[in-house]
Amino acid sequence: MGDMKNYESRTAKSRRLYSRSSNVFPGGINHNIRFFQPYPFFVDSAKGKHLNDIDGNRFTDYWMGHWALILGHSPKPVADILATQVRNGTLFGTVNPVSVELAETIQKLMPRAEMMRFSTTGSEATMYAVRLARAKTGRRVIAKAIGGWHGFNTTLMQTVNYPFESEEGPGLIQDEGQYVESIPFNDLEASLKVLETIKDDLACIIIEPVLGGAGCITPEDGYLQGLQEFAKKNDSLFILDEIVTGFRMSLRGAASIYRLEPDLFTLGKIAGGGLPIGIVCGDKEIMSLADPISRKDKEARCAIGGGTFSANPLTMSAGLATLNFLKKNPGVYSKIDRLGSMARKGLEKTFAEGNIQCKVTGAGSLFLTHFGHEQVKDATDVATSDRNMLTKYHLALMADHDIFFLPTKMGAFSYVHEESDVKKLLAATQEIVSSGILRKKK
Amino acid sequence: MGDMKNYESRTAKSRRLYSRSSNVFPGGINHNIRFFQPYPFFVDSAKGKHLNDIDGNRFTDYWMGHWALILGHSPKPVADILATQVRNGTLFGTVNPVSVELAETIQKLMPRAEMMRFSTTGSEATMYAVRLARAKTGRRVIAKAIGGWHGFNTTLMQTVNYPFESEEGPGLIQDEGQYVESIPFNDLEASLKVLETIKDDLACIIIEPVLGGAGCITPEDGYLQGLQEFAKKNDSLFILDEIVTGFRMSLRGAASIYRLEPDLFTLGKIAGGGLPIGIVCGDKEIMSLADPISRKDKEARCAIGGGTFSANPLTMSAGLATLNFLKKNPGVYSKIDRLGSMARKGLEKTFAEGNIQCKVTGAGSLFLTHFGHEQVKDATDVATSDRNMLTKYHLALMADHDIFFLPTKMGAFSYVHEESDVKKLLAATQEIVSSGILRKKK
Repeated sequence: MGDMKNYESRTAKSRRLYSRSSNVFPGGINHNIRFFQPYPFFVDSAKGKHLNDIDGNRFTDYWMGHWALILGHSPKPVADILATQVRNGTLFGTVNPVSVELAETIQKLMPRAEMMRFSTTGSEATMYAVRLARAKTGRRVIAKAIGGWHGFNTTLMQTVNYPFESEEGPGLIQDEGQYVESIPFNDLEASLKVLETIKDDLACIIIEPVLGGAGCITPEDGYLQGLQEFAKKNDSLFILDEIVTGFRMSLRGAASIYRLEPDLFTLGKIAGGGLPIGIVCGDKEIMSLADPISRKDKEARCAIGGGTFSANPLTMSAGLATLNFLKKNPGVYSKIDRLGSMARKGLEKTFAEGNIQCKVTGAGSLFLTHFGHEQVKDATDVATSDRNMLTKYHLALMADHDIFFLPTKMGAFSYVHEESDVKKLLAATQEIVSSGILRKKK
Repeated sequence: MGDMKNYESRTAKSRRLYSRSSNVFPGGINHNIRFFQPYPFFVDSAKGKHLNDIDGNRFTDYWMGHWALILGHSPKPVADILATQVRNGTLFGTVNPVSVELAETIQKLMPRAEMMRFSTTGSEATMYAVRLARAKTGRRVIAKAIGGWHGFNTTLMQTVNYPFESEEGPGLIQDEGQYVESIPFNDLEASLKVLETIKDDLACIIIEPVLGGAGCITPEDGYLQGLQEFAKKNDSLFILDEIVTGFRMSLRGAASIYRLEPDLFTLGKIAGGGLPIGIVCGDKEIMSLADPISRKDKEARCAIGGGTFSANPLTMSAGLATLNFLKKNPGVYSKIDRLGSMARKGLEKTFAEGNIQCKVTGAGSLFLTHFGHEQVKDATDVATSDRNMLTKYHLALMADHDIFFLPTKMGAFSYVHEESDVKKLLAATQEIVSSGILRKKK
């Protein structure tokens, strides 16, 4: 996996702490993707574009809190309001005005969010979205994309990891998976063929507009529209999972960019300003199926959660401060999109000049490099590309250039990144290409 | 529902805001239980034992953030550390030292937490616990208590609301419920009879040591031990859901009080200092089924989540500050338990003197009144007691005495409550009893 001696010599404290961490957490981590070889560095503070580890290293961060931190780490408008809020209550456990303000702000930006329910995680939001779809349609089957990532909830934890056709491991019983069908992203004809076979019992199609966790894959023209059209004709719901793309690709979400009209959609990450949130929202009539006031009888009501921490004042304040900043500063999007475009073009050029087959995917501020394939248009292309080379590349950026991508994962620009960061990324990449380490066999 | 004119005249701003809230949220709320008639008051700050609403009312809070705030709202040790942390990163998105410290602290207090996984909500933690149980045993059936509350996840959202035998509403498909069997709390013989019929496919029993959401029911001697014994003999897992009771009934949890040895248990609420958290923990061998390092192949690994917000530094810091305070101040428990005992005895006496049939259940700092039944030992007794009278009582405390219980829900003392609060609660109760409003038919 390349020469990691430099990394190990600079992260002695992290190595020792990882050993302690492995004694209390399976694999030493609390999210499977947070581990990488030889061990991850431990962060003790983060500010702006930087992660600072316990050995005194400072990394330029392109992981940005699972892509949630569009304004960077602890941006002033968010930190200021939180510093006050932490002294005025962190969990009221009841209704509060900030939640209404945040919801109204979202509704103005995304009018299709006629009504919404705030939960605490994206995994909860997608779980409630499919529950609402089943309640609305009286049907059972959920269609999702192969490699589509909608969190660890039991319903949608299917065809997530390669090889996609095999099960996602013990503990998920077959009966739970039998009503999930998967379709190949960006292949409309094949997708419609699958949908046709299940149409009588098809409650909904749930899909990310840009495959995120599966490898930063943008939709080809007409693909998402074709799925939406099928769903509408079939009286199935079209659910767009905008947990990553909402407020990242534009203030109005990817739906406005790709001109989609989902019945329901999910938000998270940026909507909570980096604090825990998940939102299911959309059509008023569908959302009203969960109304506990007008539907007192439990058998008439779709039981979706909020949870202890739903609409807590910390998340509400951070989300509102973030959206207000974004509304007042449209320059955020032009800047991060420009940096994204520079990075995609620059990286493709750099690798091409080094005679390394590389495709850089993405849109707006999101980007990811893929080695060894000419074309990368779905999760299978990503999974079968040279992942070993990608890991080497990301680890070399980290070890030798203090540039952090969560190895093999999509990168994101935030408002605190500058053109100089792109230049550093390109120069570092150039150096890595020249060094020849990407060519060495492990 | 009693005379609520006093409440309405004091909460005009809340009435207007509730109307706005109802335009954006189904039922105007983000958690079904947060609504009560005629409309809930909106909180804009909370400090110590008080909730302050937008009309300038100040309520003494016994709901305490879904019972999570054992030190009250924004206690200084937690607020201080959060005020610093919000400027040093709210979501690193990677491993951090505070999470290891928090885990080690929990492990020292609760040695059965040999390993753990931090997620963001309790609903996630219980979902992962049953997934681990199914992975460990290769069996499918989950036994839970009738009325047992383990969050809104699809697997455990069964027999939660009265009438317990009917389904929990549209959207939850039958196939998802077929592997959940429910047992009557506190009836060991009947519970064992049910368990006997499913024993060959029984993956686990998951149970709250004290039924919380279902109405503050403590276990009778031998009940939980009997279930545990059955589980162990049957090679099924015994899972204790300590999301409410962990760090509330004692620093070592309800397991130490009732001398239980669960294979897995779940924590939440207090463990995160009031910030979003859920924890599944327990036996090292079982937890290791989720280790993504030693089990690289997805078919060998139980896929449990962490989620974007897992182990975020805000929650980790707040949880650690809370547990450290509790460790240094054992007086917290003697105080809140004493207040709980005073309240239980005092309330029973007050209602008895007023010739109102009332049973006050609870243990330690937790308590709830039930009207009309001589005996309240399970969720059915709670649900069939005079809930209308309970609602009237809680609303009268709120409207006329500025004392807040989430109507019909269990109350909790926190370290910021004083004996004078118990006296006020008893005096207010005395006045309500004397006024005769609890006797008026609606």
